[in-house]
Amino acid sequence: MTSASVSEELCHFFRQDAVAQYLGAELVECGAGRATVKMEVKNTHLNAYGMVHGGVLFFLADLAFGMAGNSEGNRAVAINATISYLKSKKTGILYAKAWEYTSNPRLASYTVQVIDEQGDRLALFQGMAYRKTHRS
Amino acid sequence: MTSASVSEELCHFFRQDAVAQYLGAELVECGAGRATVKMEVKNTHLNAYGMVHGGVLFFLADLAFGMAGNSEGNRAVAINATISYLKSKKTGILYAKAWEYTSNPRLASYTVQVIDEQGDRLALFQGMAYRKTHRS
Amino acid sequence: MTSASVSEELCHFFRQDAVAQYLGAELVECGAGRATVKMEVKNTHLNAYGMVHGGVLFFLADLAFGMAGNSEGNRAVAINATISYLKSKKTGILYAKAWEYTSNPRLASYTVQVIDEQGDRLALFQGMAYRKTHRS
Amino acid sequence: MTSASVSEELCHFFRQDAVAQYLGAELVECGAGRATVKMEVKNTHLNAYGMVHGGVLFFLADLAFGMAGNSEGNRAVAINATISYLKSKKTGILYAKAWEYTSNPRLASYTVQVIDEQGDRLALFQGMAYRKTHRS
Repeated sequence: MTSASVSEELCHFFRQDAVAQYLGAELVECGAGRATVKMEVKNTHLNAYGMVHGGVLFFLADLAFGMAGNSEGNRAVAINATISYLKSKKTGILYAKAWEYTSNPRLASYTVQVIDEQGDRLALFQGMAYRKTHRS
Repeated sequence: MTSASVSEELCHFFRQDAVAQYLGAELVECGAGRATVKMEVKNTHLNAYGMVHGGVLFFLADLAFGMAGNSEGNRAVAINATISYLKSKKTGILYAKAWEYTSNPRLASYTVQVIDEQGDRLALFQGMAYRKTHRS
Repeated sequence: MTSASVSEELCHFFRQDAVAQYLGAELVECGAGRATVKMEVKNTHLNAYGMVHGGVLFFLADLAFGMAGNSEGNRAVAINATISYLKSKKTGILYAKAWEYTSNPRLASYTVQVIDEQGDRLALFQGMAYRKTHRS
Repeated sequence: MTSASVSEELCHFFRQDAVAQYLGAELVECGAGRATVKMEVKNTHLNAYGMVHGGVLFFLADLAFGMAGNSEGNRAVAINATISYLKSKKTGILYAKAWEYTSNPRLASYTVQVIDEQGDRLALFQGMAYRKTHRS
């Protein structure tokens, strides 16, 4: 989160995300059209079966998507997203890596992979953002 | 949550969802193939723009989807989900209402509407579940 | 297709869709934010297993979506779509009914049901359109 | 289509797809968990705006998905699919390249890119298949 690869401005933007703070997500890396976030699984992330909640996997992917979408100074808002669940987990560290797949001045689409420490694929996410205006 | 329309078993199942507890979601109603959950917006639900996080809207929808999918004693796991974001909110009470759209012995699909207190549509969610075995 | 409920302008617009003509789709009804199209299953609509091709079900849904999206004079372009396949068919008449789920000046989302003559649900489609300009 | 990289059995399976024949799609390559199909744009592929129909782009992607999903002898049926439209085209040759993203004995997910001759990305497709039984 203090990595040289993340600008101060993006770190600041990330820290303003209250859910990210509340669930314990961290920004690993963020650059033009891409971002990586991580989160250590805690008990508060589990569903009724004791597995990481699908909504938590989605949240982590969505967070990486949001950072990638806002990485270049645009104010981008998500208009839709799709997630496929591939493998479930109970513990460990989760990573979500987002990258821009395509964009035009108004719309941009992103792909996000959620993986564990071993690199196993847990979920695949695809999101589309609408670029409203320059953020600042 | 103590509504007569929710069986004790389902209430118990819901209370085991740690994320639901942590984020403050409540089960309003749950029956064969359907469920309604609600959540009052708190500061910990907001994104960096001060709006309810897309991941929180998804989580609420996913929770209703999960309750509907498990409402008949099956152990159903989500295999994928799609969400369209329609309107953003900063405060108030959010409701997610899920209903089974179609099912066969192995696969079932659900539609979930996320609305606010005025009934305005905030998000539309569609999820598919794979029915593994009977839950208990 | 010559129903009083479809304006001449929309009928004309529909007839310009070359794929609809080539695959044999017909416009049943079209009004503000909604449309119904139908198609009788032919051999040229089948996949290698002899069932109606998933791409044909999608096409029919997409056509209804496109007509609903263009029903009010906007030039709307699809930005994404999701389909869930619920039941397969070999013969008969298929209907796709689209309606606007929500919209703002730039983005609109539509839900489309594909059903057969008995009203059985074959597919559920959700699409999002971006409104570029007024069509004419 | 007569490429050494496609087995006779898969070529035969592809030729049984009536829609692929009717719309003029060809199998370029097919192996374990992957497939490439192509199609030259014809007038019968266009929508009312004179652009390649979104349903045709979907169909081409779906075809590659289906071949990849059936490439290993399973009888796989699509359960859902999502497409994002990135760029529109009027003419030229379109390619859809599918690869398996993840799988377990019952469910497999595939990513499909639709590109033109210049390699420009036209659409991104993600599909999930349910593996029923061995095909033959």
